[in-house]
Amino acid sequence: MEKLPKEQTINMRRKFLCDSCPLFYSNSPLKIVKASKQYMYDEEGNKYLDCINNVAHVGHCHPYVVNEGSKQMALLSTNIRFLHDNLVILAERIISTMPSSLSVVYFVNSGSEANDLALRLARCHTKSKDVVTLDHAYHGHVTSLIEISPMKLRMMAKNCDVPIQPYVHIAPCPDVYRGKYRDCDFPATEDLSQKYADDVQRIIDDIKAEGRKPACYIAESLQSCGGQIIYPKDYMKKVFRYIREAGGVCIADEVQVGFGRVGSHMWAFQVHDVIPDIVTMGKPMGNGHPVSAVVTTPEISASFQALGTSYFNTFGGNPVSCAIALAVMDVMENERLMQNAKEVGQILLIKLKNLMENHPLVGDVRGIGFFIGIDLVLDRNSRQPATEEASCIVESLKRNGIILSREGPYNNILKFKPPMCFDKENADYLVEKLGEALTEIEQKSNH
Amino acid sequence: MEKLPKEQTINMRRKFLCDSCPLFYSNSPLKIVKASKQYMYDEEGNKYLDCINNVAHVGHCHPYVVNEGSKQMALLSTNIRFLHDNLVILAERIISTMPSSLSVVYFVNSGSEANDLALRLARCHTKSKDVVTLDHAYHGHVTSLIEISPMKLRMMAKNCDVPIQPYVHIAPCPDVYRGKYRDCDFPATEDLSQKYADDVQRIIDDIKAEGRKPACYIAESLQSCGGQIIYPKDYMKKVFRYIREAGGVCIADEVQVGFGRVGSHMWAFQVHDVIPDIVTMGKPMGNGHPVSAVVTTPEISASFQALGTSYFNTFGGNPVSCAIALAVMDVMENERLMQNAKEVGQILLIKLKNLMENHPLVGDVRGIGFFIGIDLVLDRNSRQPATEEASCIVESLKRNGIILSREGPYNNILKFKPPMCFDKENADYLVEKLGEALTEIEQKSNH
Repeated sequence: MEKLPKEQTINMRRKFLCDSCPLFYSNSPLKIVKASKQYMYDEEGNKYLDCINNVAHVGHCHPYVVNEGSKQMALLSTNIRFLHDNLVILAERIISTMPSSLSVVYFVNSGSEANDLALRLARCHTKSKDVVTLDHAYHGHVTSLIEISPMKLRMMAKNCDVPIQPYVHIAPCPDVYRGKYRDCDFPATEDLSQKYADDVQRIIDDIKAEGRKPACYIAESLQSCGGQIIYPKDYMKKVFRYIREAGGVCIADEVQVGFGRVGSHMWAFQVHDVIPDIVTMGKPMGNGHPVSAVVTTPEISASFQALGTSYFNTFGGNPVSCAIALAVMDVMENERLMQNAKEVGQILLIKLKNLMENHPLVGDVRGIGFFIGIDLVLDRNSRQPATEEASCIVESLKRNGIILSREGPYNNILKFKPPMCFDKENADYLVEKLGEALTEIEQKSNH
Repeated sequence: MEKLPKEQTINMRRKFLCDSCPLFYSNSPLKIVKASKQYMYDEEGNKYLDCINNVAHVGHCHPYVVNEGSKQMALLSTNIRFLHDNLVILAERIISTMPSSLSVVYFVNSGSEANDLALRLARCHTKSKDVVTLDHAYHGHVTSLIEISPMKLRMMAKNCDVPIQPYVHIAPCPDVYRGKYRDCDFPATEDLSQKYADDVQRIIDDIKAEGRKPACYIAESLQSCGGQIIYPKDYMKKVFRYIREAGGVCIADEVQVGFGRVGSHMWAFQVHDVIPDIVTMGKPMGNGHPVSAVVTTPEISASFQALGTSYFNTFGGNPVSCAIALAVMDVMENERLMQNAKEVGQILLIKLKNLMENHPLVGDVRGIGFFIGIDLVLDRNSRQPATEEASCIVESLKRNGIILSREGPYNNILKFKPPMCFDKENADYLVEKLGEALTEIEQKSNH
């Protein structure tokens, strides 16, 4: 399966590919040559437990998905200017998982294409350009999304003086552990969701004061790259109400967190008991195959159509992409993977929280289903981020055959978003090795 | 292969999908259930000769491509944060087809993602936002590209008063048959390429007068949706010089016209003997699989890296997409498909030109390789577009089992962009049936 010696692969990569996409473990990158279920294998046959590839949703190279995709590839792949059953069957199936108001689908190729289309829909429907986005958010790599992705904006502003557009408004991320309003700074009776929502209302007031209105509020239903953030109860409800009162629409970005990852629900916005106006989905949808979608209301879709110009996406909704997405949904049902995420996620969360007893480095453990974040701190009172220690732990886990990574503005938050077939034994092994890594580093820093 | 009766497919499509993407033959759409080589088959087994699917580049469902893709799907599909041989082998292979200055590749999922990234690269490198684009151009469906796609802008302006951004500058399309400067209005000695290039220079002067400079000039190397336009000799050379003198870079959009379609060269910009700073490619690259790329210079790539923020594309460059793109390039070589496009394209062009003798409806026939446009006119002197007649011809050809479509600002130009395995017998059949359709409609309008 390996065609070139690893050194040559590295050299050719350095020569022919842009350096803008860093490798995992950049000092000693992994050359992965095959994968199956929740495991990846390097060129020497070493096996790794994959705790982060949320794209390989139903397990790497799931044979049923591969087979359905291969069969359709051999039969037909063309654009949606022709009628095809896969397209409409998938559309109906996705809509069946949504609140009834969300009943029109657009198929695209990536989360970036989905979020860009969501913005176009929102702006067209509201005839406004102003976007309210969350701090540390990342919504995709195309121009329109970089503009509303503070995670990228802040880095570019630091390096290159790239300005924030006047129609982009950054609200504080409702992170009660490390955000603007922290649970440790307020009595337990204080409603932090209201404080964070008030900040959004202030932004809306500012937009109105300039004679405009918000086109939309966009947020991941749980913030991923920003640090695996779970918003306080009722925050989204309040914000959705404020935005709608001001004439805007609400976009739930489910590209990373949707498709059953939370276990209890198909979509993470359902955890918050809200109904968005536009939902975007992507990464897990094709188990690695480039397929994504936008779902919206007939009213918003009608506004878009009134532009009088067609929307055509060359590959979007082709029979192969649809066959693969349908197969992914089949496997989720047949193998009860949401149930698995719920059960194993819950067990893992408890075990990880138990690590806090003996490991002061662990400041916070939070999660739902197979979406878990572990915030590492140098000191539990100041919550100073333990960035260096997080890096050491990721390396230590790698030596034990576990692929885990870190994120957040300080790169100190361990993220856990595995394939949905991750099992109890995997959870035990992860907790055991993570515990050892924590002990090791805590002992080191005590000397 | 059909899962639903056709009526139900139509009804479900109406119910669940946005109407913004119209069907071909909207009054009586085709339900295609399988395809092979240059042929598509409907649910009743009727066979159609495909003259327009430039995405099914080496032939629909080519077994070698399907097999290579299927094998890799079963083995591994993950992101480029891990090393993989397919990625670097494909990068080297694409670069081997380019001028030596173009030596860095970025892999993405669609032509839209590629052109958006090209814009980001150009703007970042030049620290300017101003874009010079051609009238009637279409570069993709994301926000940043709709802004520079006059084909879409003009339709939206007509319907919804959507403004053209102040940093977007529309140069006349150098179409010597139907454009601003027509061959019929000037002596044969007049250099129309200079007149069109002068218009670009005037735009540059206007940008400069406002204290800015162009970030880039972007154009398809042959304009597709605008009406299968072949620019006059030396036009691109002149424009590239003017843009570079003003500090901008030149983007060749090869999404539709690249990958050997012109027969004589791998890239259509090579026909014009120019070297772009950025090249984008897409549609044919994966024979239907969503894979695309951007190639640029090390200098431009370095400017992008200096932003200090990573570029990550979830699916871009995954081992399956790369395996499929490599397989497409293998088939092109093994089956000598560029040679076929050159030879059959030349024969077809001559035969189509011969139709002009007996068919006054045919105003102009132009093309290179498997990129041919037939401009239908009501009158050869006024060149008034024969829009209605073009529509009738497309319908007539459909009745004869030929899929052909029309485009251009007046929808009067028949476009021919078939799979690269289109053969001489196909060419004969197309010419025969097109001749009959022309006769039929000419007789009708004489009564």
